[in-house]
Amino acid sequence: MKVSTIGECGLIERIRSILPQPRDAVLGIGDDCAALRPAAGTDLLLTTDLLVEGVDFTLQTITPYRLGRKAMGVNLSDIAAMGGLPRAALAVLAMSPDGEIEFVDELYRGLHEEGVRFGVEIIGGDLSASSTLTIGVTLVGEVKTGRAVTRSGAKPGERIWVTGRLGAAAAGLAALKAGCRLRDDQVEIPFEVSESLREAARQAIERHLCPIPRIREGRALAEAGAASAMIDVSDGLALDLVRLCRESGVSATIKADRIPIDQAAAAVAQRFGHDPLAMALQGGEDFELLFTSSWEPADIAAIFPDVVTVTEVGEVQHAGQECRVERQDGSTVTLTGGYDHFGRR
Amino acid sequence: MKVSTIGECGLIERIRSILPQPRDAVLGIGDDCAALRPAAGTDLLLTTDLLVEGVDFTLQTITPYRLGRKAMGVNLSDIAAMGGLPRAALAVLAMSPDGEIEFVDELYRGLHEEGVRFGVEIIGGDLSASSTLTIGVTLVGEVKTGRAVTRSGAKPGERIWVTGRLGAAAAGLAALKAGCRLRDDQVEIPFEVSESLREAARQAIERHLCPIPRIREGRALAEAGAASAMIDVSDGLALDLVRLCRESGVSATIKADRIPIDQAAAAVAQRFGHDPLAMALQGGEDFELLFTSSWEPADIAAIFPDVVTVTEVGEVQHAGQECRVERQDGSTVTLTGGYDHFGRR
Repeated sequence: MKVSTIGECGLIERIRSILPQPRDAVLGIGDDCAALRPAAGTDLLLTTDLLVEGVDFTLQTITPYRLGRKAMGVNLSDIAAMGGLPRAALAVLAMSPDGEIEFVDELYRGLHEEGVRFGVEIIGGDLSASSTLTIGVTLVGEVKTGRAVTRSGAKPGERIWVTGRLGAAAAGLAALKAGCRLRDDQVEIPFEVSESLREAARQAIERHLCPIPRIREGRALAEAGAASAMIDVSDGLALDLVRLCRESGVSATIKADRIPIDQAAAAVAQRFGHDPLAMALQGGEDFELLFTSSWEPADIAAIFPDVVTVTEVGEVQHAGQECRVERQDGSTVTLTGGYDHFGRR
Repeated sequence: MKVSTIGECGLIERIRSILPQPRDAVLGIGDDCAALRPAAGTDLLLTTDLLVEGVDFTLQTITPYRLGRKAMGVNLSDIAAMGGLPRAALAVLAMSPDGEIEFVDELYRGLHEEGVRFGVEIIGGDLSASSTLTIGVTLVGEVKTGRAVTRSGAKPGERIWVTGRLGAAAAGLAALKAGCRLRDDQVEIPFEVSESLREAARQAIERHLCPIPRIREGRALAEAGAASAMIDVSDGLALDLVRLCRESGVSATIKADRIPIDQAAAAVAQRFGHDPLAMALQGGEDFELLFTSSWEPADIAAIFPDVVTVTEVGEVQHAGQECRVERQDGSTVTLTGGYDHFGRR
């Protein structure tokens, strides 16, 4: 059934019926504003991200449900990067009136389910007609007063760390571009591959389609006071490290052989003729946390007792030079690249 | 100069340089999240609105500066409708990489200037490429704990009031559709008209392009505890009254001869063959406040001592009948209509 058959009011009612009544909000969907009661002794964190069809995603490779999860996940990652606790979301959707209602159902189911995993309720939003499918989430989180971890606190001499492993999302994108598809949880590959490569491709695509926001890890770092600066790796380690350094007024050197390359990413990258290190450095959407710290490695490791790894990749340096990556032979390359929405492709 | 020549990072830096450093925010543009310290004893209000080219506006009739002001203004109106004080905004922009940087400059100048009028600073946002120009604002406001005026508090027997005068925005839209244009503050009309009609058209177009959010009036009503329910008239008095009544579980009758029709709107409507009453009832984007109250008229009037008028237009009634408008001859018409983004046109 087309969206135009039930109209804007009908669609709002339908979305309201998909989403459970929020328990945390003073006021949810159905009024001029949503309302939330801030917890005492907290600062409010606010972030917003748009996903645009043909730019940030294509419906050829992602289901509406996964798209909903991703739209929520990328915003959750921004809250994680401040060390915050996410609380509530507004969702905006601009789409063709000829679009299917079932698409909207699945999208909001994904938004809702990803939110619920991290304690987030959808309490408002907006709908509009548009010839370009556009999904936006605004996320509100909180952090103890004055304890938000910004991008601007890195100091020369500190160590640079990254959570998890990098390159999987970019490898997943490469696999999708080569014609691989994820249907339910099965990967479809249009050519002969080994069972291990099939599994690697599945993992990489899953990672591209469904980022894992590092909320718990970000909060643990903020609560311990361990991170002097933090950013999520959304546009590639290279670009995001440059951003962090720019805001902190420092530079950095990272070591190529320390960068934690995802194994699935490496396998997929090699199969499709990409350089695994380049994917880890310049591929976007890993949504791991990149942070700096004056703490000793053993103390950092103690904050991450469970499945997520954390790796020391380099050192913060004084301003006055470019950020760079050092190869094993001692040669260095200036860090550039990463994803630019308006750059020439 | 095209946006693609400076890229996403360049554009963010340029926008940062247009906007002054926020004084109220803990953290502004340039980090993963913006941060704000909530005032003690307040609830947080959150609202978001998208404006999509070809649906909500056309650049044939609105300058980028005015578009920025409007995108901020429509969100301010939602805060006004809860009786809130607006504080900070996130702005999202999706546009073609071939778009002009000067367009972005002017858009953000408008967003900023309209915000400043009401104490709002732009503290974050997002940029994306898109083939459809889309502007979104998320606004954060605050209201004393538990004092937000919702749509759901109207009770049978209460009076229904509306601020200001209605129909001007719809008349302005009709004038634009007939080929009239506003350049700077001069109106261009492609046919012979009287000086008074020219001035009426200018006022109506101005009202369509630049809504006046009723922040002061909404706050005064909330602080006095005068309004039992409130909504802003964004999609026409008829539809917004129906919405308020649905959320309150009541119905309503309003009197046709009490509806405060804007004089400029009436003149323009008649010139272009429209019914002024229909414009006042079904024309959207007036952004006046519609509210219900058990207070006596003299006490309501005392809250509005200055230039904004307030008019009693009808009475809240028990559920079980449709909302309706009563003509002078005693006949009634069921209220329907107003703007629907996904409806058949």
